[in-house]
Amino acid sequence: MKNERLILVTNDDGYASKGLSAAIEVARPFGRVVAVAPETTQSGMSQAITMYNPLYLRKVREEEGVEVYSFSGTPVDCVKMAFDYLLREERVDLMLSGINHGSNSAVNVLYSGTMGAAIEGSFYGCPAVGLSLDDHSADADFEAAMRYGTQIVETLLSGPVELPLCLNVNVPVGRSEELRGIRLCRQNRGFWREEFYRHEDPRGREYFWLTGAFVNSEPDAEDTDEWALRNKYVAVVPVQTDLTDYGQLRNLRRSFPSACDSDPASRK
Amino acid sequence: MKNERLILVTNDDGYASKGLSAAIEVARPFGRVVAVAPETTQSGMSQAITMYNPLYLRKVREEEGVEVYSFSGTPVDCVKMAFDYLLREERVDLMLSGINHGSNSAVNVLYSGTMGAAIEGSFYGCPAVGLSLDDHSADADFEAAMRYGTQIVETLLSGPVELPLCLNVNVPVGRSEELRGIRLCRQNRGFWREEFYRHEDPRGREYFWLTGAFVNSEPDAEDTDEWALRNKYVAVVPVQTDLTDYGQLRNLRRSFPSACDSDPASRK
Repeated sequence: MKNERLILVTNDDGYASKGLSAAIEVARPFGRVVAVAPETTQSGMSQAITMYNPLYLRKVREEEGVEVYSFSGTPVDCVKMAFDYLLREERVDLMLSGINHGSNSAVNVLYSGTMGAAIEGSFYGCPAVGLSLDDHSADADFEAAMRYGTQIVETLLSGPVELPLCLNVNVPVGRSEELRGIRLCRQNRGFWREEFYRHEDPRGREYFWLTGAFVNSEPDAEDTDEWALRNKYVAVVPVQTDLTDYGQLRNLRRSFPSACDSDPASRK
Repeated sequence: MKNERLILVTNDDGYASKGLSAAIEVARPFGRVVAVAPETTQSGMSQAITMYNPLYLRKVREEEGVEVYSFSGTPVDCVKMAFDYLLREERVDLMLSGINHGSNSAVNVLYSGTMGAAIEGSFYGCPAVGLSLDDHSADADFEAAMRYGTQIVETLLSGPVELPLCLNVNVPVGRSEELRGIRLCRQNRGFWREEFYRHEDPRGREYFWLTGAFVNSEPDAEDTDEWALRNKYVAVVPVQTDLTDYGQLRNLRRSFPSACDSDPASRK
């Protein structure tokens, strides 16, 4: 039974990253694992798709119960390649994206390739988890992220879950025994302000490089993922994709009084 | 007074696209226009940012009241370059992203570079509008999109508006007199299923190319942007960026009973 399950793994740091291997190890005890990950680093790629380029698929590793592919597109391209081509005839039980080198809390969920892939995965009828560790270093210690990732995957595979379900899981730095447990949170409000690093390339052309600082708009809000991370909790935020601003939909009726009302109940 | 206003224009089709010129013409009567648009086509780039490459800025055109720059990054990079560098000392009154060649209704709001830029713009304290025409052709007729775009820009600049405000505006094909007016909508539910076009390149390597079909999960829902577009209305959806799924946040308390409750009110 256990080995009949199928887990899809992807990430945005690329097929060769340490975090992908860690995610595969998290998934492996639960069944067969297929990983389809980007050929190159795709950090900050959000939910981007490749429209105007051909994409190349390559099997990079195969062993008992694990297949790893690299795909030359974005994280979302990888998810589409998996569900719509490689695994088209199969039932995927869960998708795991990560383990990301660096957190994706707060507004970072919008820019994150890890979360772009997780969101895309949740469109295909299985629970999807984006798992990130608040440590950008190449030799980060994934022990706590793996332990909590395992707990979350186990919970989702064993319990009844309502779909669609997409979780943004962010793990603080530290060994698992130093962490305070899982905390269910909402997305913190905040934004980035960029300082453009400005320099000249070897040919004398001026270039710019993004280098920003996150501004937390609500540092004291204890129900947010940022607060949880800063306070050594594993932050779990369920994510949805209806971006409609229903509050503004009401406000806009005043700005556009001649607009046709789209609420069927209020039309004659 | 009128000419003291500053409008930022961007897009995802690139600085040389016909749609950018149309957007500049929409903005021009309302004040000074600065356009910062991608050097190359960035369709489907979502809210992606460039983290691991230097970016080049180039002024491509300057005339009375209009400056046009190309920037070698994504649409969001362009917005950040404008607000955080070029216009850092100035007050931007409105941001207009588009006019996009192709609609960005329903789930396309998530993949769209046009809307990625508009969302990013709304983080900088001014109303932001993503304006798209439901016609992919290079010689699309932008008359109706320009007319309705003008009406919307005028409304936002003249009225009091609550911020943040980001509008996803999609205009059907047709002359403005054939359209039925503005309709305030919510985002349609649906998703893409991809058919990967598969072929061999001239060197015998197999490649894949995304080619999908949109599945409308609620074709009869008259309060959605898809329905409005199909029925010759200009669809206006206000967009927000808190992705928290509050319904699932409640459900998950059952799945993770040992999780710390992040709702301050319910803790002792």
